[in-house]
Amino acid sequence: MPEIEVFPNPAAQRDYLIKHVCPEFTSVCPKTGQPDFATIELEYIPDESCIELKSLKLYYYSFRNEGIYYEAVTNRLLDELVEACKPRWMRVTGIFNVRGGISSVVAAETGPRS
Amino acid sequence: MPEIEVFPNPAAQRDYLIKHVCPEFTSVCPKTGQPDFATIELEYIPDESCIELKSLKLYYYSFRNEGIYYEAVTNRLLDELVEACKPRWMRVTGIFNVRGGISSVVAAETGPRS
Amino acid sequence: MPEIEVFPNPAAQRDYLIKHVCPEFTSVCPKTGQPDFATIELEYIPDESCIELKSLKLYYYSFRNEGIYYEAVTNRLLDELVEACKPRWMRVTGIFNVRGGISSVVAAETGPRS
Amino acid sequence: MPEIEVFPNPAAQRDYLIKHVCPEFTSVCPKTGQPDFATIELEYIPDESCIELKSLKLYYYSFRNEGIYYEAVTNRLLDELVEACKPRWMRVTGIFNVRGGISSVVAAETGPRS
Amino acid sequence: MPEIEVFPNPAAQRDYLIKHVCPEFTSVCPKTGQPDFATIELEYIPDESCIELKSLKLYYYSFRNEGIYYEAVTNRLLDELVEACKPRWMRVTGIFNVRGGISSVVAAETGPRS
Amino acid sequence: MPEIEVFPNPAAQRDYLIKHVCPEFTSVCPKTGQPDFATIELEYIPDESCIELKSLKLYYYSFRNEGIYYEAVTNRLLDELVEACKPRWMRVTGIFNVRGGISSVVAAETGPRS
Amino acid sequence: MPEIEVFPNPAAQRDYLIKHVCPEFTSVCPKTGQPDFATIELEYIPDESCIELKSLKLYYYSFRNEGIYYEAVTNRLLDELVEACKPRWMRVTGIFNVRGGISSVVAAETGPRS
Amino acid sequence: MPEIEVFPNPAAQRDYLIKHVCPEFTSVCPKTGQPDFATIELEYIPDESCIELKSLKLYYYSFRNEGIYYEAVTNRLLDELVEACKPRWMRVTGIFNVRGGISSVVAAETGPRS
Amino acid sequence: MPEIEVFPNPAAQRDYLIKHVCPEFTSVCPKTGQPDFATIELEYIPDESCIELKSLKLYYYSFRNEGIYYEAVTNRLLDELVEACKPRWMRVTGIFNVRGGISSVVAAETGPRS
Amino acid sequence: MPEIEVFPNPAAQRDYLIKHVCPEFTSVCPKTGQPDFATIELEYIPDESCIELKSLKLYYYSFRNEGIYYEAVTNRLLDELVEACKPRWMRVTGIFNVRGGISSVVAAETGPRS
Repeated sequence: MPEIEVFPNPAAQRDYLIKHVCPEFTSVCPKTGQPDFATIELEYIPDESCIELKSLKLYYYSFRNEGIYYEAVTNRLLDELVEACKPRWMRVTGIFNVRGGISSVVAAETGPRS
Repeated sequence: MPEIEVFPNPAAQRDYLIKHVCPEFTSVCPKTGQPDFATIELEYIPDESCIELKSLKLYYYSFRNEGIYYEAVTNRLLDELVEACKPRWMRVTGIFNVRGGISSVVAAETGPRS
Repeated sequence: MPEIEVFPNPAAQRDYLIKHVCPEFTSVCPKTGQPDFATIELEYIPDESCIELKSLKLYYYSFRNEGIYYEAVTNRLLDELVEACKPRWMRVTGIFNVRGGISSVVAAETGPRS
Repeated sequence: MPEIEVFPNPAAQRDYLIKHVCPEFTSVCPKTGQPDFATIELEYIPDESCIELKSLKLYYYSFRNEGIYYEAVTNRLLDELVEACKPRWMRVTGIFNVRGGISSVVAAETGPRS
Repeated sequence: MPEIEVFPNPAAQRDYLIKHVCPEFTSVCPKTGQPDFATIELEYIPDESCIELKSLKLYYYSFRNEGIYYEAVTNRLLDELVEACKPRWMRVTGIFNVRGGISSVVAAETGPRS
Repeated sequence: MPEIEVFPNPAAQRDYLIKHVCPEFTSVCPKTGQPDFATIELEYIPDESCIELKSLKLYYYSFRNEGIYYEAVTNRLLDELVEACKPRWMRVTGIFNVRGGISSVVAAETGPRS
Repeated sequence: MPEIEVFPNPAAQRDYLIKHVCPEFTSVCPKTGQPDFATIELEYIPDESCIELKSLKLYYYSFRNEGIYYEAVTNRLLDELVEACKPRWMRVTGIFNVRGGISSVVAAETGPRS
Repeated sequence: MPEIEVFPNPAAQRDYLIKHVCPEFTSVCPKTGQPDFATIELEYIPDESCIELKSLKLYYYSFRNEGIYYEAVTNRLLDELVEACKPRWMRVTGIFNVRGGISSVVAAETGPRS
Repeated sequence: MPEIEVFPNPAAQRDYLIKHVCPEFTSVCPKTGQPDFATIELEYIPDESCIELKSLKLYYYSFRNEGIYYEAVTNRLLDELVEACKPRWMRVTGIFNVRGGISSVVAAETGPRS
Repeated sequence: MPEIEVFPNPAAQRDYLIKHVCPEFTSVCPKTGQPDFATIELEYIPDESCIELKSLKLYYYSFRNEGIYYEAVTNRLLDELVEACKPRWMRVTGIFNVRGGISSVVAAETGPRS
């Protein structure tokens, strides 16, 4: 896995929202071996660190030939991105292309169970 | 009715949302014998189990030649899908095509009466 | 006025939402005698009874040659549909076509004055 | 039938196109007695006369309670509008709302059979 | 200024919403003397009186050759329309066309400062 | 196969176009046994006969449980509809839902090979 | 009428197309005295001269309080703009807002009658 | 930096919302030296002063050849615009074009950390 | 390279059009080593053979880790698909995602140079 | 001016179309000194050479602080891009943002005057 680089938050004195939308995420279905395609929306309120955009692209790129399910990949993206930048809040939303006539969305965020 | 298969929730430590949208649901009107068409949106927060996508498709497919009304089918989908995966929360929304110049939406979810 | 038929709610044990959208409502302006056109959105939570779709269409059809203003017709639809099915909650929204360069929406629902 | 009024073409020295789009046309299905709804697009190149807009509206309005099929009404509109303004060219397009899950378009224009 | 006419609210026993959208509002920029163009959205909950639609159109029309800024005209519309119909609640939203590469929205409503 | 009913063309003296769009066509994939879904666009210039709309709906409905490929069903619809109404010209376009990440369109019309 | 200013065509050695779209045209209906609103599309192939954009805006602005019909104003715009810049080809299209439930388009261009 | 001009709030007696949307913001990426492009949405509730639109345009224009990151520029716009007009509330949203297959949004507003 | 399978054309007696749209094509940029993403539109008139849909998907999938430029890949797809099914006519259109602020389309078809 | 780099056409044996769309073109108005913004669409049929995408981006970037009118810049882009890659055919279309309430398009292509 490539390192997710961060840089110092230029406005840590306030809570503000950053959103990165990548319509070019692709991994492989572990059952069929066929490629899956998704748009990944990442939203977070930075604390000390912001995620560097080019390293985020390379991080997403590292899933290209990995076999992983929708629910698992969304939660793993959240875990690893939280680990990298330790935000005040973060949400990851995976919007997956139609398979078998059904499209899917998985959305996970930090915080206690409601 | 085909069995709705489930698999273990890979991230049961947090509440997160799964949404499956199927624009290819069809059943039969019990009064006229003519086919009805709908988009079914399924949203849930999994507990121990997640719904397997292919078995969901086959389950929807089993209504193809069944006679059932809009209000009844939406509530029955909710009851049977809750029974299958015992989620923390679930909502089923049926968006039905125009009949007699009128389109219809029926939305039911788990929880106490408000 | 044609009777608005109802049938027993197949899932009275829970609160759930039914929405019927009819883009083919037409009545007559009492001042000019010219036809008015509207989309009527009906949303309700049924109690004992659900509204039968074909009788709803015929009920809307009965306004075709009646002279009535936007504000009055929306509130009258609400009153008569509540009378017919005695729902736990209901809202009627009339979306009226452009007249004199102005389009209009009137929305009324059950419940106490806020 | 109300008279379709015309006024002298202010630019008869050139061929130019006039298009009037009315999304508020309604007539009655002769078989079921239920209302039909359509958008009528009228396109023509005027010769000596242009169609007056308000009389066009009233002419369309006169079909409100008349029983007539899609194919017949489109061709009759063409015949009567040609009779009224004797254009260099005219086309009438009826775009009819969904009935039985099927929407329909009928388009007729002046000129010899191709 | 033309009088804004009102008529008695036909359903004063309940709170309900009326919305009129006029995409044909135009006034003049006091600085440049050039015309400004806007869509005006008017939303209100009537008390004793409803605003008559044709007089609303003429009232908007009276701004056609008047020089007034975006912020001032939106608030003045609110003040004068409140004065005319004394509603339970009202909001006026002006959506102004692009000037200098920037489009603008101004929205004001009744009620105490938050 | 239900009979495709026709009625006499009310304007056989001119060439004009009729278009019926049905977004509710479904058949079965012969290889997988899974349902296929399509929108069928039918365009034709009638000669002596026009296709009756309700019988068209029932004709489409008869494919509901039939196993047939995209290319075959589109050409068969063309052959059988031409046989039923003997038009001056006809085109059938099948717009098929996504399967395996690929959507498909098949369009066939009468006339000599170009 | 303000002068329509022109400037020398910077590429008179070739035919190329210029299109200016103004959604802010307004004049007055001669019959009712009420304002009309339109989008004016101007397309031309310049010869020696191009139309200066600011003077075009002021020229359109000069119609603001003038009473003139759709068909007349579109043809007059064509005549006066041709006079001002003597193009190789020009077309003026007026797209007029809904009046009496009907929207209108008038399109005129240079050239011999077809 | 050009001065951001203000004028007295014409309706300081109430809280109301002003929104300016500029799709023509451009600065330079400090790392690559390549231009960045964004839409800047500015929303605020004025207190004593409103922002003058032309000076806002020139202020945005002053970033044209400045090297600055997404997160930094959004927060700096907020700081400088707050300083200029001392609003009751303000939010700045930067919507940045796709870079490396990823589009970005940064949104910051006044107020205490939540 | 996986074999592109074909099956006998079920309607070789007429010219008709088949179109397959795949929004999930991805290859690798030979210069940067970064992934490229495209929608591939394939249109053809079959002669003896039609392209089997699942083998088309696998054929596209085989480019996933191959380094190739936009212009080259579009022409190679055309060459190899023509070789596989020997159509009467074929066109391949590649619609490539934004890179460096520029999106690209490459379209190639069979036939003599014009 | 940066050099527009080219590379050998990988499929010179056939005519095929390449289209590059750049929504991030900006130059300066020579009269007002204010920035202009446009989308530039470049379409061409390559002969010996194709335009390299990154050098195209830098070439467009070189207009960022240059004062030039709409009509002149579109024709100059055509002249310089033709000079760089000597295509079989080329068209440049500039789609310019709203100025003074008017948006503009200029389109020029190679070939003899018609």
